[in-house]
Amino acid sequence: MTRLEQQITFLIEIDKVKNVFRQTFLADGKRKENDAEHSWHIALMAILLKEYVKEKVDVLKVVTMVLIHDLVEIDAGDTYAYDGEGMKSKREREVKAAERIFGLLPKDQGDYFRALWEEFEAYETGDAKYAHLLDNFQPLLLNDASGGISWREHEVKKSQIYKRNEKIEETSRIIWEKMQELVEKNIACGNVKEE
Amino acid sequence: MTRLEQQITFLIEIDKVKNVFRQTFLADGKRKENDAEHSWHIALMAILLKEYVKEKVDVLKVVTMVLIHDLVEIDAGDTYAYDGEGMKSKREREVKAAERIFGLLPKDQGDYFRALWEEFEAYETGDAKYAHLLDNFQPLLLNDASGGISWREHEVKKSQIYKRNEKIEETSRIIWEKMQELVEKNIACGNVKEE
Repeated sequence: MTRLEQQITFLIEIDKVKNVFRQTFLADGKRKENDAEHSWHIALMAILLKEYVKEKVDVLKVVTMVLIHDLVEIDAGDTYAYDGEGMKSKREREVKAAERIFGLLPKDQGDYFRALWEEFEAYETGDAKYAHLLDNFQPLLLNDASGGISWREHEVKKSQIYKRNEKIEETSRIIWEKMQELVEKNIACGNVKEE
Repeated sequence: MTRLEQQITFLIEIDKVKNVFRQTFLADGKRKENDAEHSWHIALMAILLKEYVKEKVDVLKVVTMVLIHDLVEIDAGDTYAYDGEGMKSKREREVKAAERIFGLLPKDQGDYFRALWEEFEAYETGDAKYAHLLDNFQPLLLNDASGGISWREHEVKKSQIYKRNEKIEETSRIIWEKMQELVEKNIACGNVKEE
């Protein structure tokens, strides 16, 4: 197989992520969003919102990171952020998936994507923190726009949202303030449980 | 409205592109692809395939260009590449859409996206040519993977595909050779009409 053929094999394989559905509804509330749509949305957010991040970020690297961050879900499935049991086996399932899927690429590109995915998962560098901010902020915006359908469906509590987003403030105070404002608004109208 | 609120308004508005469906089927042939999924796919291709491009390209710029290139279709709809009538009114409908949609952003960001979209449409710079290569190569890969459903549905002829892709060779000889190989394969199995 030529190098281009390896790349094409990968590109066709990852088409499957368009059929991995998340718990978040589109803004119009009519159906759930899939991983490809979500990744497109946050890649664009990475470009538009970098002015709010305290640390210096490498935008192309963050964009690449978010474009590939959910590919492991082709094998491992989407684990809902507030599903305690699912979260326990998540890491093991996803590492196996990363080996298979990134392994389809020429070695240099596969290694780069694998390293980016590990950096995202470790959630330690400035770039990874920005990627996580986007990954969390986008469903919050969609949940708010759709009238909180997904929050109500899962009876999500304020404390769960705050726990999940505990590192956002150190990345961007302005985005964290907006997130709190949206959560409070959704508590007021009964979409999120106060406790 | 604060700057962040303008950006959020834009981000929620463009969620609609997830419901603009194209004529191309997903690789598994089960449903048509939407613009957000298509844009995600070619953004990743922009990162993976740059080694095949003759001219020097700015990858972050091309990624941004392809992430936004179809947003005008929220108002203007998807015009199928081989729909002669639709292509005539396309420009007028899309310029109006660009004004409205990019106009939701803070002026500096809206102006930048509008300029990138115009650069894409003009199809003259190296970056725009690379973006078009990706925009054309991706549906060809999906059409081939899905057994040519969309080509057969529209009775697409080899000459139409060659006309649409006449500028690919000057951007990348290797990709153009692969495209020709895939077209020939699909002529041989009756998915594309020889003439």
